[in-house]
Amino acid sequence: MATEIVDIEGHIVDSLILAKVLDAVVAAGGDYRVLDLDLGRSSRDPSRAAVEVTHTDPDRLRALVAELAVHGANRRHTADATLAPAPADGVAPSGFHATTNLPTQVLVGGRWLEVANPEMDCVLVVADVDGAAAARTAPLHRLRAGDRVVVGEAGVRTTAPPRPPGPHPFAFMTSAVSSEKPQANLAARVAAELVTARADGRRVAVVAGPAVVHTGGAPHLAALVARGLVDVVFAGNGFATHDLEAQVLGTSLGVALGPPGAGGGLGLAAGTAGGPGHSNHLRVINEVRRLGSIAAAVATGYVTGGVMAACVRAGVPFVLAGSVRDDGPLPDVITDVVAAADAMRAHLEGVGVVLMLASTLHAIATGNLLPAGVATYCVDINPAVATKLADRGSHQALGIVTDVGLFLERLARTVEDQAMPA
Amino acid sequence: MATEIVDIEGHIVDSLILAKVLDAVVAAGGDYRVLDLDLGRSSRDPSRAAVEVTHTDPDRLRALVAELAVHGANRRHTADATLAPAPADGVAPSGFHATTNLPTQVLVGGRWLEVANPEMDCVLVVADVDGAAAARTAPLHRLRAGDRVVVGEAGVRTTAPPRPPGPHPFAFMTSAVSSEKPQANLAARVAAELVTARADGRRVAVVAGPAVVHTGGAPHLAALVARGLVDVVFAGNGFATHDLEAQVLGTSLGVALGPPGAGGGLGLAAGTAGGPGHSNHLRVINEVRRLGSIAAAVATGYVTGGVMAACVRAGVPFVLAGSVRDDGPLPDVITDVVAAADAMRAHLEGVGVVLMLASTLHAIATGNLLPAGVATYCVDINPAVATKLADRGSHQALGIVTDVGLFLERLARTVEDQAMPA
Amino acid sequence: MATEIVDIEGHIVDSLILAKVLDAVVAAGGDYRVLDLDLGRSSRDPSRAAVEVTHTDPDRLRALVAELAVHGANRRHTADATLAPAPADGVAPSGFHATTNLPTQVLVGGRWLEVANPEMDCVLVVADVDGAAAARTAPLHRLRAGDRVVVGEAGVRTTAPPRPPGPHPFAFMTSAVSSEKPQANLAARVAAELVTARADGRRVAVVAGPAVVHTGGAPHLAALVARGLVDVVFAGNGFATHDLEAQVLGTSLGVALGPPGAGGGLGLAAGTAGGPGHSNHLRVINEVRRLGSIAAAVATGYVTGGVMAACVRAGVPFVLAGSVRDDGPLPDVITDVVAAADAMRAHLEGVGVVLMLASTLHAIATGNLLPAGVATYCVDINPAVATKLADRGSHQALGIVTDVGLFLERLARTVEDQAMPA
Amino acid sequence: MATEIVDIEGHIVDSLILAKVLDAVVAAGGDYRVLDLDLGRSSRDPSRAAVEVTHTDPDRLRALVAELAVHGANRRHTADATLAPAPADGVAPSGFHATTNLPTQVLVGGRWLEVANPEMDCVLVVADVDGAAAARTAPLHRLRAGDRVVVGEAGVRTTAPPRPPGPHPFAFMTSAVSSEKPQANLAARVAAELVTARADGRRVAVVAGPAVVHTGGAPHLAALVARGLVDVVFAGNGFATHDLEAQVLGTSLGVALGPPGAGGGLGLAAGTAGGPGHSNHLRVINEVRRLGSIAAAVATGYVTGGVMAACVRAGVPFVLAGSVRDDGPLPDVITDVVAAADAMRAHLEGVGVVLMLASTLHAIATGNLLPAGVATYCVDINPAVATKLADRGSHQALGIVTDVGLFLERLARTVEDQAMPA
Repeated sequence: MATEIVDIEGHIVDSLILAKVLDAVVAAGGDYRVLDLDLGRSSRDPSRAAVEVTHTDPDRLRALVAELAVHGANRRHTADATLAPAPADGVAPSGFHATTNLPTQVLVGGRWLEVANPEMDCVLVVADVDGAAAARTAPLHRLRAGDRVVVGEAGVRTTAPPRPPGPHPFAFMTSAVSSEKPQANLAARVAAELVTARADGRRVAVVAGPAVVHTGGAPHLAALVARGLVDVVFAGNGFATHDLEAQVLGTSLGVALGPPGAGGGLGLAAGTAGGPGHSNHLRVINEVRRLGSIAAAVATGYVTGGVMAACVRAGVPFVLAGSVRDDGPLPDVITDVVAAADAMRAHLEGVGVVLMLASTLHAIATGNLLPAGVATYCVDINPAVATKLADRGSHQALGIVTDVGLFLERLARTVEDQAMPA
Repeated sequence: MATEIVDIEGHIVDSLILAKVLDAVVAAGGDYRVLDLDLGRSSRDPSRAAVEVTHTDPDRLRALVAELAVHGANRRHTADATLAPAPADGVAPSGFHATTNLPTQVLVGGRWLEVANPEMDCVLVVADVDGAAAARTAPLHRLRAGDRVVVGEAGVRTTAPPRPPGPHPFAFMTSAVSSEKPQANLAARVAAELVTARADGRRVAVVAGPAVVHTGGAPHLAALVARGLVDVVFAGNGFATHDLEAQVLGTSLGVALGPPGAGGGLGLAAGTAGGPGHSNHLRVINEVRRLGSIAAAVATGYVTGGVMAACVRAGVPFVLAGSVRDDGPLPDVITDVVAAADAMRAHLEGVGVVLMLASTLHAIATGNLLPAGVATYCVDINPAVATKLADRGSHQALGIVTDVGLFLERLARTVEDQAMPA
Repeated sequence: MATEIVDIEGHIVDSLILAKVLDAVVAAGGDYRVLDLDLGRSSRDPSRAAVEVTHTDPDRLRALVAELAVHGANRRHTADATLAPAPADGVAPSGFHATTNLPTQVLVGGRWLEVANPEMDCVLVVADVDGAAAARTAPLHRLRAGDRVVVGEAGVRTTAPPRPPGPHPFAFMTSAVSSEKPQANLAARVAAELVTARADGRRVAVVAGPAVVHTGGAPHLAALVARGLVDVVFAGNGFATHDLEAQVLGTSLGVALGPPGAGGGLGLAAGTAGGPGHSNHLRVINEVRRLGSIAAAVATGYVTGGVMAACVRAGVPFVLAGSVRDDGPLPDVITDVVAAADAMRAHLEGVGVVLMLASTLHAIATGNLLPAGVATYCVDINPAVATKLADRGSHQALGIVTDVGLFLERLARTVEDQAMPA
Repeated sequence: MATEIVDIEGHIVDSLILAKVLDAVVAAGGDYRVLDLDLGRSSRDPSRAAVEVTHTDPDRLRALVAELAVHGANRRHTADATLAPAPADGVAPSGFHATTNLPTQVLVGGRWLEVANPEMDCVLVVADVDGAAAARTAPLHRLRAGDRVVVGEAGVRTTAPPRPPGPHPFAFMTSAVSSEKPQANLAARVAAELVTARADGRRVAVVAGPAVVHTGGAPHLAALVARGLVDVVFAGNGFATHDLEAQVLGTSLGVALGPPGAGGGLGLAAGTAGGPGHSNHLRVINEVRRLGSIAAAVATGYVTGGVMAACVRAGVPFVLAGSVRDDGPLPDVITDVVAAADAMRAHLEGVGVVLMLASTLHAIATGNLLPAGVATYCVDINPAVATKLADRGSHQALGIVTDVGLFLERLARTVEDQAMPA
């Protein structure tokens, strides 16, 4: 077990620096103990903390401590910086110290030199200027062979970033929902959560929007329902209608879902008007209205596959809440929105995981009803939905910005693979 | 071969109505002959056209002609509308006529009745009002058992939509890049295009952005390169750096790409600082600068997988164009942007297909250089890129709004499957 | 009145080329007569058209005809191309011909030379290659002093772009809703539309979302209502609640709307709990529930300003349609969504202009109910809403991508200015 | 000066709870002293803190302490909850306690009752169940006249939210860049910052993208430059070209900027080809290339207004960094991107405020070069840019999601008003 002590100073609580440091330690697989904490009493006083960081792997600990410099946390008991010559023009020595954009100092000959021009992703060069050692940043291309470059983390310290001006530091923070993060791998995390919830006895709610059907995700969601991994489905008239339309007519909002068999069961009933059609959804709604309910449509064989049929067969309850833009609507839709929210409330007891799939209205409605701490995954190609959820108080929602159809395909496959051993 | 004649009248050329009708016919697998066309001479005169529509399947023809009503194209020689009673409250008779939002008339007793209140996705009800027949739209829920409802397409005609006010009707049109369309199935189309291009001797160019790596798509793109389906790669310092970083350190922009083996080759070189790290990309750039080129990095075994290595091994040329935000940059990057564009021009002869993957800057640069008519697919989670391409004159770009990592995974799998028989 | 004849050939109807040409003529203030039209009978035959273009200003006509080359429309009876020497390295002669990305030919010595490498935004250079004249494009930077460059439009012709592969050319088109267009000036157009509608007797409906209040637009919308320019308001519980909250407590969703007086009337009733507060909206809802209606809240003086109060005072009806995410709701909200849509239908007769302001759900609901041809302006910072409206059949919706608060401020100011003369 | 003590318990540092509490206090105009802090030593131990909150206004303090319940911070020394009867069905008594979604307890008869079903935006009802008092949440509509409802904050406590599962709590946080916040008022804040910077001797850098011109913001930015409020401008070929094009030809990217005089100076030079034109920008570039520089174009009177001319006249330096998509480019553009970044570095000394206006590439490039702590405002209609800046380490960037043209108009007006007294 390798150990280092790092020191931090500044507005480390209200600027979130201490929280970020502790988070980085845990994220890297390490652990920490807070040795000393001298918290500024008022909002004007700076604070100080010493944190002992441990890791089983000394190499990982070294990398982790280097990373903490981004937050202004510095290794204690530091020795003089190690200097090595640049091996060629534009090339730094191996193991060079990579800079942050924080105010930085370098220990040379026992004296801390202020770095003249902080800039991220540069190296530190120490040179004689007017007979005295001076430190500056340099981008790689400016290095000349023989320049003395700082190597490693020893002898370098940074100052924690200043508190941003104004009252709201949170307004300056990064968001979870950048689409440039490896979102796809999150399918594995969500799959594990579903399987664990099943084992723990936590109930799982799914909120689904029409794009689940449009993007070809419905068969995969139906598979999850059939597998017993979903306890209740919340949706609107649109999702249910298009799920049924995909089964009966092979289209979603009149758009063909690709070659037969690809997008859904495609039980193209004889005599039904086929072809692309703006009125397909209306014909399906009308027929289900005639039959009286979705359950009746399944019982009579009008609908043979898809998410709604999977719910009916597996006995999974669903709440379809109406909205003012609905066509029809389907007979199962609760058209009074206050009654619909009450119906959703009745199914929330014991829910520990919520999967929100390409839904805005019903996702926010569900978020309003949930207690804090329910694990919530919000899958949408548009990052705005997760932001809206958080803005409205559902801080626990993790935004997964991706194509919901491809995500569900991978989620279903992962669950299949994970369940194999059992 | 079934045949119907439809009539259209109005500003059918400058409001695109005729084009939409012909497009709808072809899209549904039918064919057309323009029998008569009386084009308004000036911008103030309406036009008239008669179009003969044919289809091998009479049922599909019937559905297609019904669909054309959306554009104000009406079946000729129409008989009185067929009326059938609503079988129950809130339920329409089977085969009911579904309305558009256009001005509509119904032929009853040989007289055309104007529909009082056009509204889309309703049914048409004919009733006696003050002793005379009158037609109105009704949403499903307002029907009462016994209401006389129009069934089928006979005896119903619509008027082509008016020219939108102002000079720019195109400003009122639908866009290609809605994320609610079944984008995932487009992978099959792109796969077919790549395989056909190979057979036709058309060259294929790929433009790639860093998110290809961040989202886990790099191994799949590398597979396409290794298979010989890509002739040239255009990218920037960011894409190449993160592709190499993923191979050498298992991270992309310092973010771990999931469990080892999932996101890249993960040839974690002994002695290399591992762990998450904001400076990982800088270390890789520095080492490649030391070695002199990406080709040298592959030759020495520093890089063993990924897209850039696949290019080097398969002899596929690449152009890395610099940008002002670059770190390093890699020695292969052409830092003079005018020279970089010239280098790209030198590779465009014979290019017939371009795949733009999560790239904005390099995608638009490539679009600027391409002749019209080159098949261009723009895959991005953000619809804005395809819109920008079109705004700048690359009208042939088809926007595919999806997760680029999951899309490439499916594209590679589809190509694999299609190539099997050979 | 200056006149030119242009010829077009290709798939000019189904690829929209003819429509674009006629649109460009009208947009530039010119007029046209279609002299000849030889329309391909089937979908496989190309078509030909000759169009006479006129403009009162010969200079504008010349610029317009040059512009038509973008669509492959060429001036008839063309003479040899005019050539002029490049005055310096990297500089073209004045009046140079700027290229499109279409296949291009240049008439030199009575012979049409094919341009080797079409590329947009270049110049055309004619040079001797192996004893024969040859034409190629060159970007500006590649010109050398003395190079012979084509000047003006004579002797240059382009070929209309090929029909994009696949059945849906519309999928390849530009969108209306790019945020890079000068959206702000559209305020003047909307203002004129509102004033004209008042004069014409067309009724004006406004659909408003909560962001109208959050962004500070409510006082400006209230001014339009007070001026008598709005005939009916459609909204939800959220908009009405925040409009009232802004008046009573000076906040919107608990966020202070800036310095007192800036965002609303701020009638901070004595004894009311002030300060930022997540429960502010709930307190306002509860009080209006106690009073019984928004009209009662205005009558008792609980609410003194804002959009809802302006409606009550001006006798402008409003429909508040419930949704499943609503808190409370306000007593005026119609919680049954089918009844709410019916209530909206009852107000649509005679509506000729609809202004959709930062609303998604209620905007789409309204779009579903409207007859085609109603002028619809959809103002939102997110281009997705206008795209959704168009996808659902409201093709007449013009997307204005801008900040709704700043837009309403400018709209109200413009209306004020326009109304001055009266 | 009113005072209250609040207690917090849980993972209050690494889940950011303490930081949020302190932030909320400062944001509300209050102040704090941390009385006790018992920090969990390791990542598994919960922590405890007592915070003294003060405010000059007792009413504001009461509202503030009520607000802190959202974070699980509870008033100390609490008495029994006050209960009041609901005055009517669906109506709560005045001053009712509004719930959060946290685990909640109510003190009744000296005993803490656990609230059965936490839900946000509800009221708390205490009733006898099987002979014992029990507490539950109720939405307003479920209240019945006479129900005993908790009023005020006394006797209610919440538990801090649990640490989100997984290593990255930051991934669960709200973002700064929601477009639903009152962004427009931020113009006042930015105006104040610019004026203060001038007074403090901090230099101001502006990074501008082409949409500044397209949206009509250029004249307002030029006014800021002319007023001496800008010290250096960073941009690319596109911004400079369209700024000049707007002046010389009255268009931007060939699109007319509205009625003459509205969008720019519109010095339509005699003899210059007018009208809409895809080649307008190219003609302007060519002429400036002929003249040799933007400064020469101003000196010869070819360009008389706009941002670039304002810079030339006021002696404000600018750096135009090339990119691979550039047409031309203008002679002032630095086409080597490494040299361009070095040129930008040379102007950053002393820069204390950066305004990034509708720019992605140049904004991120600038962010890469800036030391931490420089006040950075990122104005864009697309929230993605601010998110990208933060993802890349420019945590201090405040995203302002609005229409840049309208924003600059208001900013210039505000600066004008503020400067009046001087």
